[in-house]
Amino acid sequence: MTRIAVDALGGDRGPAEIVAGALEARTPDVEPVLVGPTWLETRGLELIEATEVIGMHEKPSDAVRGKPDASLVVANRAVAEGRADAVVSAGNTGAMLAAGLLEIRRLRGVFRPGIAVMIPARGGVSVLIDAGANADARPEHLVQFAHMGAIFAEEILGRSSPQVRLLSIGEEDEKGNQLTLETLELLRDSDLDFRGNTEARDLLRFAADVVVCDGFTGNMALKLMEGTIKTLLDEFRKEIEASPRGKLGGLLIRSAARGLRKRLDPDTYGGAYLLGLRGLVVIAHGSSSRTAIANAITLGAQGAAGNVVARVAARLEEEVAAAPG
Amino acid sequence: MTRIAVDALGGDRGPAEIVAGALEARTPDVEPVLVGPTWLETRGLELIEATEVIGMHEKPSDAVRGKPDASLVVANRAVAEGRADAVVSAGNTGAMLAAGLLEIRRLRGVFRPGIAVMIPARGGVSVLIDAGANADARPEHLVQFAHMGAIFAEEILGRSSPQVRLLSIGEEDEKGNQLTLETLELLRDSDLDFRGNTEARDLLRFAADVVVCDGFTGNMALKLMEGTIKTLLDEFRKEIEASPRGKLGGLLIRSAARGLRKRLDPDTYGGAYLLGLRGLVVIAHGSSSRTAIANAITLGAQGAAGNVVARVAARLEEEVAAAPG
Repeated sequence: MTRIAVDALGGDRGPAEIVAGALEARTPDVEPVLVGPTWLETRGLELIEATEVIGMHEKPSDAVRGKPDASLVVANRAVAEGRADAVVSAGNTGAMLAAGLLEIRRLRGVFRPGIAVMIPARGGVSVLIDAGANADARPEHLVQFAHMGAIFAEEILGRSSPQVRLLSIGEEDEKGNQLTLETLELLRDSDLDFRGNTEARDLLRFAADVVVCDGFTGNMALKLMEGTIKTLLDEFRKEIEASPRGKLGGLLIRSAARGLRKRLDPDTYGGAYLLGLRGLVVIAHGSSSRTAIANAITLGAQGAAGNVVARVAARLEEEVAAAPG
Repeated sequence: MTRIAVDALGGDRGPAEIVAGALEARTPDVEPVLVGPTWLETRGLELIEATEVIGMHEKPSDAVRGKPDASLVVANRAVAEGRADAVVSAGNTGAMLAAGLLEIRRLRGVFRPGIAVMIPARGGVSVLIDAGANADARPEHLVQFAHMGAIFAEEILGRSSPQVRLLSIGEEDEKGNQLTLETLELLRDSDLDFRGNTEARDLLRFAADVVVCDGFTGNMALKLMEGTIKTLLDEFRKEIEASPRGKLGGLLIRSAARGLRKRLDPDTYGGAYLLGLRGLVVIAHGSSSRTAIANAITLGAQGAAGNVVARVAARLEEEVAAAPG
C-alpha cells in the first residue's frame, strides 16, 4: 500500500476539487491521505491536520519558515517522517521547493534538486529537467539533472538506456552559452547516453528521452509552449467562428481538435517530480483539475513503486565516488 | 533613392529566388543592388561583384576573415563604404554578425550589437531583442538592447514612447535569474517606459512594444515558438485528414486557417535588424522565399529612411554621457 500525502489547500480551484481528485486516484494499492484543516470534507479519506495555508504569491522561504503548520509544509513533513511515501501539492511551487529542502532535505551529494516535467512530444513523452527549481545553475548541476532525468525516463517511462540531450541554440557542439558549452563537455565525459545539443524547435517533436537545461531556460520553455499552444488554439477558434462556413467546418473537426488538445493538455500529465530530495515530491499545476490531481497522485505512487528516490541516491553516490579529485 | 545591398548567394533557396525577391522590392524609392558573381542573372539590377560564398555551416569568424571576397562580406563592405544604405542577407547569421562587426563596425559606446526581431503577437507586433547575437550578456548590454528596441518600435512600428518589458520567469520583480534581477534594477533607473518583467507565455499575446532578453534566451524563445506553431499546425492537419468528416471540415475552415498561418509566417516579416553598428544590417531567415527577401529589403529601406542608425547612435551617446561615474 502506497500512501500519498495530498495538500488539500494547494491550487486555484479549492479543496473540494482536490478531495475529488484524491478519491479518483484511490485504488487498492494507492491510499491518498489529505493534509488540511479538520473542517475539510474528507469523504472517507484519512486526514493529517494542518491549520495554516500558504498563498500562491507569498514569498516561499519566509512563508515556509513562518508557517510550520501550513498544509504544504505538513504534507512534506509527512514524507520526511515516513507517514507517506510521496507528497502532492498544486500550491506555490517555490514554497514546495523550500518545504522539500527544509523538511525532506537533499540526498547526499546532490547540489540542487531539479524539477522534471513530461513534455508531450509527437514521437513520445520527453523528460525536461530542470523546469524551474534553480534560475541559476552551474554545469555540474546540469549533469546531476541529466542523471535524475535518466532515472525518471527509465522508471516512469520505461525507457532502457535513455538518450540525453542538452537544450541549446544550435545542434553543433560550439553553439550555446558559457553554461551549455561547459556542460556539454562534462556530459560527453559522463557514462550517460549523451547525444549532444538539441534546439528548442524540436522539443515538441521528441528531441530525446531526457532534455537538460537550467531552470530559467526550462521554465521559460515550458511556459512559452503552453502560451503558444493556448494562443494558437484560441485564435484558431476565433477565426473559425467568424464565418458560418467556418462554424460548420469547426463542428466537423471537433473530435480531431479534441484529441490534439487532450494530448497537449498539462492536466493529462498531472505533475512534475522534484528530484534530488530524500523523499518523493510531486508538484502539480496551480490550476489543476481533479483529473490532474488524480494523475499527479498516480505519478507519485509510480515513483514510490519504482524506488525513484533510492535509485537517484545510488546513482549520484556512484557519480560522487567516480568524480576526479 | 535608398540603395540596399542584397547578398545574392545567401539563403537556402538559391540566387534566382533572391533576385526575384529583389525585383519584387524595387520601387522608385528603393533600389536593390545585388552582390554576387558575374555569372548571376541580374534581370536588370545593378551588380557589385563578389567571387566567394560563405556556407550556412562554416565557422563565422574564420569564414569572414578567410574570405574577404565572399558575397556576404562584400555586401557589408558596401554599406561601410557608403555604396549602399543597408545590407540584406539570408545567409549564415553568425557570419553576418562577424562581417558587420569587421566591416561596418560598432557605434561608439555600444558594447554589443543585438538582433531585433518582430513577434507577430495577437495585440500587435512586438520587438524582441536580442534574438541571438550574444549567447552570453551582461545587464548593461540588455539595457542598451532596450534602447535600441525602443527606437525600432518608434521608427518602424510607429509607437510613441514604447513600453519595455524584460523577459523572465515570473512577473514579480523578484522572479528571475541573476542576469534579469540585475537588469531589472538598471531598467527601473533608466528613462525608458519600463513596465517590469513579462513571462514567455505572454509573448504571443503582446507582452509589450519591446521585450528584452539575452541572445540565448531570445534565440531559444524564437525557435520554440516557430517549432511549436509548426508542430501544432502539422498535427492538426494530420488529425483532420484522418477521417472523411474531418477532411470536409478542413476544407470549410481552410480560409480561416490560412489567415492565421499567414500572420504567424516568418516570411511576412522578412527579416531582423542587427542593431548597434554604424550601418543598417538586415538578417533574413535562411529559408526565405522571394516574398521574405522582398520584405527584408523593404525593412532595410524603412530603417534607412527612419535614420535608425543615427537615432541609435544619438540615444546611446546620451546614455553614455548620462551614466554615473
